[in-house]
Formats: sequence, C-alpha cells, structure tokens
Amino acid sequence: MTDAPVRRGRAARQSAPTARQADYRRLANPFRPQEVFSADAVAALHSSALDVLENLGLSILLPEAREVLARAGARVDEDMVFIGRDIVAEALRTAPGAMRMRAPNPAREVDYAPGSLIFTAAGGCPNVFDHERGRHPGSEETFRDAVKLVQSFDVLHKMPVAPEPQDVPLHLRHLVTLQAQLELGDKPLTVYARGRAQLRQCFDVIREALDLSDTDWTDGFWVSTVINSNSPRRLDGPMAQGILDFAREGQMTIITPFCLAGAMAPVTVAGALVLQHAEALAGITLAQMARPGAPVSYGGFSSNVDMKSGSPAFGTPEHMKMQLGAGQLARHIGLPWRSAAGSASNAADAQGAHENIMGLWGAVMGGATLVIHAAGWLEGGLTFGFEKMITDLEALQTVAELCTRPEEDEAARAYEAIAGVPPGGHFFASPHTMERFDKAFYAPLVADLSNHGNWIQAGAQTAETRATAIWQRVLAEFKPPAGAEERAARVAPLIARLTAARGAAPMTES
Amino acid sequence: MTDAPVRRGRAARQSAPTARQADYRRLANPFRPQEVFSADAVAALHSSALDVLENLGLSILLPEAREVLARAGARVDEDMVFIGRDIVAEALRTAPGAMRMRAPNPAREVDYAPGSLIFTAAGGCPNVFDHERGRHPGSEETFRDAVKLVQSFDVLHKMPVAPEPQDVPLHLRHLVTLQAQLELGDKPLTVYARGRAQLRQCFDVIREALDLSDTDWTDGFWVSTVINSNSPRRLDGPMAQGILDFAREGQMTIITPFCLAGAMAPVTVAGALVLQHAEALAGITLAQMARPGAPVSYGGFSSNVDMKSGSPAFGTPEHMKMQLGAGQLARHIGLPWRSAAGSASNAADAQGAHENIMGLWGAVMGGATLVIHAAGWLEGGLTFGFEKMITDLEALQTVAELCTRPEEDEAARAYEAIAGVPPGGHFFASPHTMERFDKAFYAPLVADLSNHGNWIQAGAQTAETRATAIWQRVLAEFKPPAGAEERAARVAPLIARLTAARGAAPMTES
Repeated sequence: MTDAPVRRGRAARQSAPTARQADYRRLANPFRPQEVFSADAVAALHSSALDVLENLGLSILLPEAREVLARAGARVDEDMVFIGRDIVAEALRTAPGAMRMRAPNPAREVDYAPGSLIFTAAGGCPNVFDHERGRHPGSEETFRDAVKLVQSFDVLHKMPVAPEPQDVPLHLRHLVTLQAQLELGDKPLTVYARGRAQLRQCFDVIREALDLSDTDWTDGFWVSTVINSNSPRRLDGPMAQGILDFAREGQMTIITPFCLAGAMAPVTVAGALVLQHAEALAGITLAQMARPGAPVSYGGFSSNVDMKSGSPAFGTPEHMKMQLGAGQLARHIGLPWRSAAGSASNAADAQGAHENIMGLWGAVMGGATLVIHAAGWLEGGLTFGFEKMITDLEALQTVAELCTRPEEDEAARAYEAIAGVPPGGHFFASPHTMERFDKAFYAPLVADLSNHGNWIQAGAQTAETRATAIWQRVLAEFKPPAGAEERAARVAPLIARLTAARGAAPMTES
Repeated sequence: MTDAPVRRGRAARQSAPTARQADYRRLANPFRPQEVFSADAVAALHSSALDVLENLGLSILLPEAREVLARAGARVDEDMVFIGRDIVAEALRTAPGAMRMRAPNPAREVDYAPGSLIFTAAGGCPNVFDHERGRHPGSEETFRDAVKLVQSFDVLHKMPVAPEPQDVPLHLRHLVTLQAQLELGDKPLTVYARGRAQLRQCFDVIREALDLSDTDWTDGFWVSTVINSNSPRRLDGPMAQGILDFAREGQMTIITPFCLAGAMAPVTVAGALVLQHAEALAGITLAQMARPGAPVSYGGFSSNVDMKSGSPAFGTPEHMKMQLGAGQLARHIGLPWRSAAGSASNAADAQGAHENIMGLWGAVMGGATLVIHAAGWLEGGLTFGFEKMITDLEALQTVAELCTRPEEDEAARAYEAIAGVPPGGHFFASPHTMERFDKAFYAPLVADLSNHGNWIQAGAQTAETRATAIWQRVLAEFKPPAGAEERAARVAPLIARLTAARGAAPMTES
C-alpha cells in the first residue's frame, strides 16, 4: 500500500481560530549556506573578476566618479577605468561586514548582516495587475495600495518603490513615493537613485520626518537604493552618482549587476558570475573610495535567458546555481549580499509560484541577507501583481516559520501524551493537544484545504482567485501604524515647499 | 533604481531548439543535509521512541508477526508487543545502509542509499483528474496512462501503482497493475502489500517476466512496497504480513508511519516524530527479525492537520520541520529514508505548486533518498492529477539539474569572452555563447516566458491549462521501451493462468 490518503472532514474542526503570533520581524536564516563551486573555483572566479577590472576595465559615465577612482590609483582612459586589485583589496578592507538598517519605527530595524533574512516586495515595475482593475500603468493610487500591503505583512521588511506611479510627473515622483512610505508605514525606507538633485531632497525629507541629528543620520543607515550596472562593464551617470551620494551620506547602496547569461553576460554560470563579481566590486570600490566604511551590499541578480523567447528567466536551475555561487563569492569577500526571487510568469499560477519559490530557496540556501522582488513580481518585473503578492507571501511566511526551531524539551517529545492514547486512538482530545492546538501550526494565508465537494461548491477558486479577496480585505482594514501621522505632519511643510518649487528633475542618462 | 526589468522580445531567439541532454536517471543530492534539532535532541527523540516501544508497546494484528518478535525476545500480551531496545539495536545492526534497486532495464537501476535522490509520482490515489476527462474514479485506462507518463520522464525513477484502477476487480488488480508496469515500462517495480496470496503471485510474475534465478532475485531488490502503520501504535494484518513476506524474499519494504500531528499523533513536531520513529523502528525490527539483512527503508511522512478544515496539510512549515527532523533521525540510525512531497490543493494552481515544492525542498534538504508523491498528488492524495503531474515535473527537473555542478574551468569563467565584448555590448554573437548556447540552459517543460501581449493573444493560458496539451502529446507519442514487449510476452502465459484461476483476493484487515 502507498500511504492511503486520509479522508477529509471526518475530524474537521470548523474554523478554529489561531492564537499563533509568530514574530516575522527579525529573521535569522536557520540553514547553513550551500555551495556549487569548489573553494578553488571561488578563488579563481574572484581572481578572474579582478583581472577584468584591472586589465579590461569598465566604462563609468560620470567624470566625478572617474576622478574619485583615479585619486585612489585607478588608471583612467576617457570613460574607461582600470581598477587594480590593490585598490579593490583596500575597499574590501573598509567595507563593513554588518550594518544596522534603521527604520522610522525602531521595532522595524534589522541587522543587515550575513545570517539575517530580509524580504522585500516587487521592485522596478512600471505596470500593475490585479483582478479588480486589470493590467494598467502604475499610478499613485496603486503605489499607495502597494505600500499599504507591504506595511501590513511583517514578513516584508522594507518599503517598496514600485509600482511606478506613472501619473505623477517625474520631477515630483521621488517626493510622492517617499511621502507615501512615511505616511502609511514605519519600515525602512527605499528610494531610487535618479540623480543628485532628487537624492538631496529625499535625504532632507527623511531627516526632517524622522527628526534626525547629524550623528543619528550616520549611525546605521536610514535609506537604501539598488544600484544596477549596465552589464557588460558599464556604470551610467545616475548610478555612479547614486553610489557617491549615498556613500558620502553614510546611506546604503546595494550594488547589483543584472547579468543575464547568454545576453548581457557570458552564457556560462561561472562566466556570468565573473562579470557580476567584477561589476559589483567596481561599485563597492567606488563607494569605499568616496567614503571609507560607507554601508554597501554585494548584490547578485544573475540569471539566464529563456532559449525559446529570449526573455530573462527566473527560478531556473541556472539562476539557482548563480545564486549559490554568488553567495560563495559574497562570503569570499566577507560582505552580506542581496539576491532576488521573482517570476517571469504572466499569472499568479503554478509557474509563477514555481519561479518565485525556487528563487527564494536559491537565496535562502545561498545565504543571502536581502531577497528583493520576493512578492508580487510578474512578467520579469514589468508588472506588480496584487494577487501574486498574496500567493508569494505564503512562501515567505513559510520560510519565516522555519526560522523558529521546533521545541525539543521533554514536554514537546510528548511521551506522556503518547502513553495516554491507545493504539488506533487519536490525539484530538489529549490534554497535550488541547493545550497547544490553537498555536501549534502556521495558519495559511491563501491555501484552501477544503475537500473537493466543498471546494467545488464554493466556486472552484484557484489560489489566484482567492487572493483577490485577501488583498482587498487587507486594504479595506488598513490603518497607518502609530507614529506615521506625526512623521508625515512634521515633514509636510518641507514637502509642500519642495513641491511648490517643482521638486527636482531626474538626472539624464549621460 | 531597483533592477529595471528587461523588456522582452528585443532579442528574442525564436524557438531555438535545445540540444541539452541532461541525465536525470541517477541523481546525487548536491546539498548537505540541514538540521532543525540539536544533536542532543535527536538522541532524546530516539530514546523516547525506544521507551515507547519498550514500555507502551504497539498493537500488531497479525499473530505470525507477534511470534517472530516474541522469538526475538519481545514481550507479547494479546495483540500488544513490547520491543526492548536491545532487539531494536540488533535490528539496526543488520539492516543494510545501502541497497541496489534493480530494474527490468539495468540502465534504470539506482542505489537506494543516503545521498541518492529518487523521485516517484503520486501514490495511493483512488481518483483521477484531468482537463480532458474531468474528475472520476481511477480506471485501468487512466492507470495505464499514468504508467506511460511516468515511463516518459527520466526524473521519475520508479513505476507507480496509482491511480487505483477501480474498474478492475480487487482479486485481479495486483496482476493488472503489475502487467502494465512490465508491458509499458522498464523502471523499478512497485506493488501494494495486500496479503500473502497476492504477493506470492506478484513475486512469481516478476521473476518470470525478468527471467530471474534464485540468486538474481535476492541480489539487490526488484520490487518495493510502502508499509503504513495505523498511527498511533498499530500495525494491521496486511501491513505486518507484507513486512514478513517482502523481507523473507529479500525485497524492499519502506516503513512509513503517517503521523498527522494534532490528529493521529501528538500536536508537536517533536512528539509526532517520536511516534513516527517508534512505529518505523517497530517495522524495521520486524523485517530484520524475519530475515536479517532484509532491505528496508526508514520512512517519514508526518505533517500537521489544517486548523480550519481538519484536513492533512502538506508543504507547511511544520511538515518541513518534520522532514528535516526525520532526516536527522534516519542518519542517527544509519538508514536511507523516504520522504514525500504532495499537495492538499484541489487544483494545479499556485497553492498546489507551493505545497509540492516546499515538501520537495524539505525532502532534499533533509537528505531523503526517496521522495514519494512528488508529481501529481492532489487533494492530499485522493486524486491523481495529470496536469498537476506536469507542473510538478518542472520542479523535479529543476532539482535534478541542480545535481550537476556548473563547469568551473578557465573556459567556463569566460575571461576571453568578456574581453571580446565592449561595455554596453552583448554576448549573443560571442563565439563563447555560440558554442554553448543550445545546451547551456534547462529547457522548461511547461513554463511560458512569452511577453504579455503574446501570452494574451495565445489565450492567456495558465500553466495548468498548458499542461493538458503536454500530457496529451506525451501519451500520443508514447512507445514502450525496448525489451518491454519481450518481458510482457514471457510472462503472459503465467498471468493468463493466474487470471483464469481468479487471481487472489486481498487480505482482509487484521
């Protein structure tokens, strides 16, 4: 016989409420990092990346950044910068291995360090999809809805900057997105690096809203941004300036090449990682040369193209191998690193779940500190999916639960309970069960375990369909957290002033 | 900026065929087993389980099995058997730590040993669901279709005995299912233990079909079965007899308590594992006392009930903790172990994928050798889903790909290729890419990475919907493997004779 399935319902406990209150705010990865490369290979990948920086160089489109590196000893030839391994070694000496990620609410602060697990929702999405409003360009309304959703789930540890509010003019978008984060949330803040003029305003807004002194401001970091290099081997103006400006203010840049094997990067896992590593080291070095000790994170977001469509693919075996390899490289240089778990699927279906969950495990097993795009990333990031966010949250909460070890004391081993139930009996009424039942298990967010008849009667809804009612309910019940109103009020005059002065235009690409 | 999504299609390589031929037939788990319990706790769990066996005993409904254990020194009181720790220790001394799983086709043989990964499709399902035929009781036709599907994917390593062909009378079902396995496949065989009379016929059929001498027959094992105890603390007649009969013939029993925490087992992870471990040790001990050295596998299939519906839940955090703990217990006693990855979902949707993939990672990280129900298990095993099987296969193939380490030599590191592409360029036309592109990446089975417009135009199909055409194509193109026809012909007269003599009735419960 093979595991006779247990018939449903015969022991149904109808809607037993859960008293469980697991703490998802600070997660420690319970697993030992896993490896795909030998130690020798890791050293060789690192060395090849140093060769790339030293001998092939990379193009940096911002003269100021080239000057910073030249002063540190790099050779500069027009836009090309050749960074010697000694300079990189010096940067790695000053780059901090652990940092405090500050938050408007101190209870939301986390350590940005190896061993921590920090999850964020989808980033970079121009569009939105949900079953109520369909697929449409991101708007201020849907951005604020996304902030509310992120704020409502403890397993998401940091504010989003997506979906892009395309109905807000570009010169005001940085203010509108930051204001929503402050007004509706209390988690660590996120901004885009779209040029010095905008960043200066963002930093001012944050300091004013949180009432930070100069020493407060640089004690840990209060805001972070992702820096993407333009693979292969190019750092554009806004990104280079972002590295400088964040570093000088003691704020965090997450240096993340997006190396798509077979397109903007070599087709091999090892080759894509060499390019990723070279570009990440260049960004880290620039940050450290701008200000030694500046908070900076290694970033890896390498995957492969899908051979049929030419699109970037996620949650693939190659993506996962690159995640595990990126983790090895990050540990090799002693820095925390950021990975990603997203989906290329067009729907929050089995493919969408598969891609996110595989990427999530790649990140967790690779020892990533930060996992970006971990909820709601559809179409390879083109779309922020509200239902997708809900189905992905189930996976994040599952991993978060695993961060708590099971009890292992004598009471947990339950010998007395086993003695009290005869062969063929059941534990439903055992005092051992009764004492623990309401908080023993994770209560699913979207999973429906009804038997088939009940499921059909209730409309045969897939998880994606059920997810609609869940995000709608969360938004309907949303209340801003304590303190948010004060913070928003404190900064309102400054934002009004900046807005009246037409905000700030983003930096052009250069 | 947060990882600007890459617009699709601009570099599309339309339907590039894949030349990739990864070998999924023998998989070695590339990951180090992970732990949820301290070493002390593992020893304490083991010791508690021995206390259960020694002092609380378990009910064994087959007199012959009680006699075997009594002869080994166990105390027997009516149906209760109390097995001392010395007897268990002796059993663990003779139980083999690694065995050869034989197959009709030698190329399909695998080592049943720690470090191997063996995947099987859904087991135990009375019903079938697919989008062509709807949900209905399993039939001979759908069982044969399931065998064909299993045979068609190398990542499934063993023949199925589900869905249950309910249109075949019980006294012939063992012959019909075995005949289909021999006629349509060449992978290791599986039967149910439904009493001695049926088993004797099954063993005769296998030996005749494969033309095995006495020494062939016991050199490794040719057939296996799952033995489920009736938790808590009961072993019924057919199961106990199955253990004896398989052991005496040198064939494999996979001893698997199904301990549902909060229902048939204590509500705690540790407590459910103590009960699971006690029952598994009892079965292992019975097998070893019947024949020292008999092939036997530790089995763990413990999970929790869903608090809302009372149904068994899978892929939950508690399920995964039990998987990791079961792996620790299996390593503690030095035996390979069997886990499971299945779904309680009613559909092959995001929930279905989530549950299977979480259970799959629990098994892989727990160092399981055999992962049962890993494709196609819907509704907690009540239904064998054809689309579900396809979407689950994507996950199994992803894990199988991870069993191959990436190349790490100088060519793979691609320094020359990186040197050959200028900043801002691309690697599409790089010789390094051209030489490798057609075999660089896993080609998805069901994932669709079309851009949104193309996906809408093609009918906005979810993965579940696309899966229908996939299994239909596989069945339409199915051809039995080489040698199957001969094996079926060789055994046809015996099966005809047994059938004419009305096969054999299953053993009644106790």
